[in-house]
Amino acid sequence: MTDAGRKKVALVIGAGDATGGAIARRFAREGYVACVTRRSLDKLQPLLDSIREAGGEAHGFASDARKEEQVAELVEQIERDIGPIEVMVFNIGANVPCSILDETARKYFKIWEMACFAGFLTSQAVAKRMVARGRGTILFTGATAGLRGAAGFAAFAGAKHGIRALAQSMARELGPLNVHVAHVVVDGAIDTAFIRDNWPEQYALKDRDGILNPEHIADSYWYLHSQPRDAWTFELDLRPWMERW
Amino acid sequence: MTDAGRKKVALVIGAGDATGGAIARRFAREGYVACVTRRSLDKLQPLLDSIREAGGEAHGFASDARKEEQVAELVEQIERDIGPIEVMVFNIGANVPCSILDETARKYFKIWEMACFAGFLTSQAVAKRMVARGRGTILFTGATAGLRGAAGFAAFAGAKHGIRALAQSMARELGPLNVHVAHVVVDGAIDTAFIRDNWPEQYALKDRDGILNPEHIADSYWYLHSQPRDAWTFELDLRPWMERW
Amino acid sequence: MTDAGRKKVALVIGAGDATGGAIARRFAREGYVACVTRRSLDKLQPLLDSIREAGGEAHGFASDARKEEQVAELVEQIERDIGPIEVMVFNIGANVPCSILDETARKYFKIWEMACFAGFLTSQAVAKRMVARGRGTILFTGATAGLRGAAGFAAFAGAKHGIRALAQSMARELGPLNVHVAHVVVDGAIDTAFIRDNWPEQYALKDRDGILNPEHIADSYWYLHSQPRDAWTFELDLRPWMERW
Amino acid sequence: MTDAGRKKVALVIGAGDATGGAIARRFAREGYVACVTRRSLDKLQPLLDSIREAGGEAHGFASDARKEEQVAELVEQIERDIGPIEVMVFNIGANVPCSILDETARKYFKIWEMACFAGFLTSQAVAKRMVARGRGTILFTGATAGLRGAAGFAAFAGAKHGIRALAQSMARELGPLNVHVAHVVVDGAIDTAFIRDNWPEQYALKDRDGILNPEHIADSYWYLHSQPRDAWTFELDLRPWMERW
Repeated sequence: MTDAGRKKVALVIGAGDATGGAIARRFAREGYVACVTRRSLDKLQPLLDSIREAGGEAHGFASDARKEEQVAELVEQIERDIGPIEVMVFNIGANVPCSILDETARKYFKIWEMACFAGFLTSQAVAKRMVARGRGTILFTGATAGLRGAAGFAAFAGAKHGIRALAQSMARELGPLNVHVAHVVVDGAIDTAFIRDNWPEQYALKDRDGILNPEHIADSYWYLHSQPRDAWTFELDLRPWMERW
Repeated sequence: MTDAGRKKVALVIGAGDATGGAIARRFAREGYVACVTRRSLDKLQPLLDSIREAGGEAHGFASDARKEEQVAELVEQIERDIGPIEVMVFNIGANVPCSILDETARKYFKIWEMACFAGFLTSQAVAKRMVARGRGTILFTGATAGLRGAAGFAAFAGAKHGIRALAQSMARELGPLNVHVAHVVVDGAIDTAFIRDNWPEQYALKDRDGILNPEHIADSYWYLHSQPRDAWTFELDLRPWMERW
Repeated sequence: MTDAGRKKVALVIGAGDATGGAIARRFAREGYVACVTRRSLDKLQPLLDSIREAGGEAHGFASDARKEEQVAELVEQIERDIGPIEVMVFNIGANVPCSILDETARKYFKIWEMACFAGFLTSQAVAKRMVARGRGTILFTGATAGLRGAAGFAAFAGAKHGIRALAQSMARELGPLNVHVAHVVVDGAIDTAFIRDNWPEQYALKDRDGILNPEHIADSYWYLHSQPRDAWTFELDLRPWMERW
Repeated sequence: MTDAGRKKVALVIGAGDATGGAIARRFAREGYVACVTRRSLDKLQPLLDSIREAGGEAHGFASDARKEEQVAELVEQIERDIGPIEVMVFNIGANVPCSILDETARKYFKIWEMACFAGFLTSQAVAKRMVARGRGTILFTGATAGLRGAAGFAAFAGAKHGIRALAQSMARELGPLNVHVAHVVVDGAIDTAFIRDNWPEQYALKDRDGILNPEHIADSYWYLHSQPRDAWTFELDLRPWMERW
């Protein structure tokens, strides 16, 4: 069986938040079948609806990205029933600040498992397919904590450093196999319900473009995927104009 | 006098090579008046012709970017006679490898003067106008040598580190004034006459997209300039898929 | 009970290899009681013997640094029965290169668990005691893979990036509490049985000082611990003079 | 003529401030002849006196490190009349913050000339001698501005990035020739008359070890010079325990 004539899939792991959803919509708008995952299916419904209403095709999957078997099954099912995964976006975060003195072993592990280990499992499973096909794009959502540790951020910084190390190692190994791996450093608050409810002062900056619009983050993922292979980007950062850094 | 109704200018400092030329053409295609500089005017003619033939507007300037007065005059003239400089690209390189033991003081200075000091002079002169207007984009062409020193590259790395420090300092100071400053790390050989004539083996990779196409570099400059201000990039890297790094 | 008159302890987690052993001997020579751990006790005997023969005091512990309860018990026992832990060195590595396409989830996890998670568990347990006392030093053995991913090193780079993020986050949080946290980037082959048996060509460089002497690595750990607090180092790198980097 | 029996020289370029002076005294105490320079000779007298009173040997030179001929003459004179330069320390800084909008071309140039170009001239002149002898140490005083640009620090960051690029390029080229090149990142206020007079609040932290003691900085330079060549450090940072970073 060849892929000729089959639909192209964009798989977004962790499409629960505003960013993952915007990325899925963006790729759907470009003609990709959006396959989106999170742990429980019902929360995906609004996203699936919005893509379909806009004329796109979308499929939701309840899949725990931390479980090797579930990941294998997810990738197998999509590739068999829907189409080749041309783009994968890993978008699970887990920013829960805590003093290093109070951090629990359980939470330190969970943050890594969600924000790093799940990234390894999913990107590897997809990379094997892409390498076999000789093409593909894998994009990771990163954060400033992936570049620098900070007081109160040992666990999150650890996971984000880990995912960046994964992305960089993959990029160096898979680039010459025609698989484009890139890492986006999101530096700033994003326009989400979480920020609106918990950081109203930050959220008020929205009127002056002081927080990131998920649609604009999504544009950068599309840009990365669209790059011709003689000029691939591994890493770019995104932050509001007024952000201090 | 207001800028209302005036043409928007994209100023490319160092449009002598393939990259600067491609960037000028790209912005001209988007409706900007391309103002391009190099030290001698005659070598700019083919670029001006190609922009005009494509229906764009272009002006060439013989201007030494290392001379404060010439830079002041250049900026003054453009802003007065043509239009507000909305985008400036600093694109002067000077990659002349040499053992640290053999490097001359004169060459070490020249490389810095061309690839760093000229960047300070031009970007500052333009930044003053942009800050007064409350908008603008300043883009710097960087290199891997701006991130890392290497045997045989003390002078070039010094200049490129300097220009990156300038870009980062400007970005942090001028971002909150609505001026977008960004730095592009070009990592790999570019499709130029220089590479074709001096590095034929490298050039042969062109058939497999193994060297950077200046048009694609130019696309990334346009992408950076087009970013909405809630999601600005300071730095991105560009390299061919098969490049080792 | 106060610590007055009690012996000072240097705890080395992962004293199985040449480096951990050399560090333990170095601190013992300076008057510290060396407490050394690895998973099985019998392999620690030669190290304990060599410290005692040199007139030092040493205690061995079979302790799995990946197990929270074992770590808690280890720290409790040392602090209660021997003395306050003034220095802790985390020295567990796990450099097992593998293509990202072939890496198993189990091994990816194990490498992180050994080289990063164990570092979190042990350093946190000790940090709580040090913060309560208002003094102490925590040193992490790092690697170049902690700064940069590479083809074939996704798992190791992930763990080493994670431990560096931990070290940096701890340093920023605990420095102002008078606990000195530092990270040593070892870049090059070390004079060990492993290198001798598996990399004879590399090992042959020993005659020309081309591989790292564990005693000299240990000197740098002592240097870091000895720094007065107005001039603390967070990070230093160590490599042979002839190493390419 | 051989160097057998000749005195070993430690040359400190820019021994005007507390740090350069402390470094000169430290090496003099270890038996090196301290050769110290600054632009005017009379200000060196107290330093020379203090070294001699402590039983050391010291020579002062009025030498402008920005002038190639003066540098050549300085090195020639020392090597001919006193002894081989075994260690060189480049210690000229020029931290004069200024908004990028107000910076003058003259000052931007001067800061680079003092803090970077002079470093190239002096280290290269000395490196040639060291490479011919097959040994030597070259140490550069750096700053956080050498790693990161910041608002108001474009000129200083540019110079410090440049000197770091020089140091790193030299280290990579000259390490395998048995010349040890290292870069010290000093991050924090130093106990100097300048800080005392201009930053009294900062200076008041001295009682709690909150500012760097020049003697302790000097100890780190000695440590770097003393490292055996199988375990050389290229870079280390120094900051007070309570410093935020």
